[in-house]
Amino acid sequence: MATKTTPKDRSNLVPFSSRLETGRALAEDVWSIFNAANLPADCINLGQGYMNFAPPKWVTEAAEEALNSVAANHYSHPKGRMRLRQAIKKVYGPQLNRDLDVESEILVTSGANEGQYSVFTAFLEPGDEVICFEPFFDQYLPSITFNGGNPVYVPLHPPANASGKFSSDEWKIDADELRRAITSRTKMIIVNTPHNPVGKVFTRKELETIAALAEEFNLLVMADEVYDCLVFDGKEHVRIATLPGMWDRTVTVGSAGKSFAATGWRVGWLIGPEYIIKPTLAATTRIVFCSNSPLQEAAAAGLEQVQERKFFEQQRAEYAERRTIIAKAFDDLGLPYTMPEGTYFVLLDISKVKFPEDYPFPKSVLGRGRDFRACWFIAIEIGVSSIPVSEFYCEEHANIGEVYGRFSFCKDVDTLHQAAERLQKLKQYIV
Amino acid sequence: MATKTTPKDRSNLVPFSSRLETGRALAEDVWSIFNAANLPADCINLGQGYMNFAPPKWVTEAAEEALNSVAANHYSHPKGRMRLRQAIKKVYGPQLNRDLDVESEILVTSGANEGQYSVFTAFLEPGDEVICFEPFFDQYLPSITFNGGNPVYVPLHPPANASGKFSSDEWKIDADELRRAITSRTKMIIVNTPHNPVGKVFTRKELETIAALAEEFNLLVMADEVYDCLVFDGKEHVRIATLPGMWDRTVTVGSAGKSFAATGWRVGWLIGPEYIIKPTLAATTRIVFCSNSPLQEAAAAGLEQVQERKFFEQQRAEYAERRTIIAKAFDDLGLPYTMPEGTYFVLLDISKVKFPEDYPFPKSVLGRGRDFRACWFIAIEIGVSSIPVSEFYCEEHANIGEVYGRFSFCKDVDTLHQAAERLQKLKQYIV
Ligand SMILES: Cc1ncc(COP(=O)(O)O)c(C=O)c1O
Ligand SMILES: Cc1ncc(COP(=O)(O)O)c(C=O)c1O
Repeated sequence: MATKTTPKDRSNLVPFSSRLETGRALAEDVWSIFNAANLPADCINLGQGYMNFAPPKWVTEAAEEALNSVAANHYSHPKGRMRLRQAIKKVYGPQLNRDLDVESEILVTSGANEGQYSVFTAFLEPGDEVICFEPFFDQYLPSITFNGGNPVYVPLHPPANASGKFSSDEWKIDADELRRAITSRTKMIIVNTPHNPVGKVFTRKELETIAALAEEFNLLVMADEVYDCLVFDGKEHVRIATLPGMWDRTVTVGSAGKSFAATGWRVGWLIGPEYIIKPTLAATTRIVFCSNSPLQEAAAAGLEQVQERKFFEQQRAEYAERRTIIAKAFDDLGLPYTMPEGTYFVLLDISKVKFPEDYPFPKSVLGRGRDFRACWFIAIEIGVSSIPVSEFYCEEHANIGEVYGRFSFCKDVDTLHQAAERLQKLKQYIV
Repeated sequence: MATKTTPKDRSNLVPFSSRLETGRALAEDVWSIFNAANLPADCINLGQGYMNFAPPKWVTEAAEEALNSVAANHYSHPKGRMRLRQAIKKVYGPQLNRDLDVESEILVTSGANEGQYSVFTAFLEPGDEVICFEPFFDQYLPSITFNGGNPVYVPLHPPANASGKFSSDEWKIDADELRRAITSRTKMIIVNTPHNPVGKVFTRKELETIAALAEEFNLLVMADEVYDCLVFDGKEHVRIATLPGMWDRTVTVGSAGKSFAATGWRVGWLIGPEYIIKPTLAATTRIVFCSNSPLQEAAAAGLEQVQERKFFEQQRAEYAERRTIIAKAFDDLGLPYTMPEGTYFVLLDISKVKFPEDYPFPKSVLGRGRDFRACWFIAIEIGVSSIPVSEFYCEEHANIGEVYGRFSFCKDVDTLHQAAERLQKLKQYIV
């Protein structure tokens, strides 16, 4: 038993859990370092991946209607509001070639993030391994380790010796490398397509390779498709759950935040077979009980109307225009970059951007990859912030990411034009 | 390595985590059994603890304003929106006798529920023990066990031989029993005051007893005070964090859902010293990233104005009237019940309600405590649903709870009058 202590002689406060020492949970993360609050006030924020415009009016109006009702201000069923589950069925059913069961195959979560966390809670045993392709969405790591799992890293490889712009399609997985990463403890592969931050939309062939390994080793697949409505140039977005046999082992992840420019609504969803959804429901019910009700109603109204309004088509066209502005800025600069087939991210090769090594960098970016210093320098000197990509790699592979800064184009056209103009000043620092 | 399998010869699907076999996470819970959907359509729902009225107009209007802005539709800081943290400081600072630091001592969460889950994630090591007073809010159990902890149960004891109504104050903890429950693995005590479902508001003396043990054994205290603005008859609601030395080891839990009749908004908060809030921030950031933004703005507007509008005073008066209606119904019935000093729950002694043992009960209530059958019978025959209280006890102590049904009075006056009238029909079944 603990000995008697008083606040004064307590040398130790009650210590936090050792799980916080995993998954980089306590490290100063890239979002805090490159937070707008730490940067000059007039710095254009292309770092964080949220929009500087509002959700569509006809969607927010549905939230207002909900706020003026009674039931939609109170607890929802932990599975999600029936109206939203029906709307998800309507939009996703045809895309997944299935008559989705709203009771057992659809689960509304508090953002995609909490949905993914709940899947890990529902399926991971201590020591289970989850394969993540690098670069990875950084929340995967602590979400896995907090639930006792170990992330295992398989890099996407950019083309060797790219000197100009190249398509995100040229980032490739190595099937042998993936196979070698699988062990008897592997339980799941996360496939993020369209991919943050590469912008890659996995091809049918690539997904078939992953699917075959999932089948061979009886693995779950988490298909993180939160950017599913942001695919450009007519590229086909293949859902891995539609490949033969794959419905049975895939949970598909979606997000109202990405679909309706409403990242702060914290409404997401999971779609999959009952044996995946049911335990995940048990997990999310305990973690948050349910997602917020008024914004579920809004997301439902959104999904109900997207087809008739051709909203995703129109939104895609708007993002394509935004992509063109930022791509042209990089073309003019003459730096190599990845032209994304999907998402709202562009990876700029910043290895040729030269900065004085004695530049007054804050401590937080020193001792990190070169890209941390390069992105900081660009933010301060050029006035455009971005995110260093080595953060999205394990230490062993950080050198791949160190070459890139991630620029988000989920911003209005004026802001992007202004950023494009500023970015031309980078020329003087290119060697 | 796993051997090659095909979907056809897979006798086992990928199994869910063994953590789901803890904390009753997969059992059919009382909420699903006594769900409105399973009961006759015209049954009056006094089971589930959410309101059948809307949040105040001046609060929902702030949400509408937020929906019509840009920033408040996007990600908030994981700590919570500054406006809400400032508003929490304004209301809670004086009550806690502290100049709260909005950066390090206040954390907004996705409902109180997710906040409490995050505290467990942040502090529990496998095998750590958390003491819960019975009856307990049922979400504690899986929230503790999913994070590797073990709940340890200490009952609140109702008065022996109560034959009429008695105050919730007469439910008592036994200090020796509490002391005996503490082991070298005890990390935390949860003190829920005002208490769901008993309605007890812990006295200063009782809290001092708990505080002394927390000091002696260096324990954290989770003060679940989500019903803090629902205390009646001028009873003093003492916050354990204000007792000498206790700020240093207490995290106080609040909920916009309970404060503003908006259970579906999923906005809650934690207040405590930095060494508790900081690891909990690391946990909640990974679990949900942040709470939804528009309803944080609404909660902020609410807290900003409660004093000027005397909203909590007015709300308390409304609940006091509701409490009177239901109490009078029980007085007229002549059954013993607990008169709550706080919350919106009344425990009715249903041990004298007689029902035919061969009544057509659904399977889900058979094999459970007698109270499950009694509450079912009352819901079907009388048309008023309630919740059997043995669900909120460990098996060993379930007999204490089996005596009671929990009736919620967070309903409008007309509904309560109607319920009161129906309840008189119970007389014929009282032996
Ligand atoms: C790849 C990926 N998955 C999941 C998420 C989380 O989405 P949500 O905001 O719905 O939690 C994000 C957000 O940036 C993301 O980029
Ligand atoms: C004692 C207690 N704590 C916490 C909660 C959860 O509150 P919230 O709805 O804010 O998650 C409840 C809800 O019923 C409760 O009764």
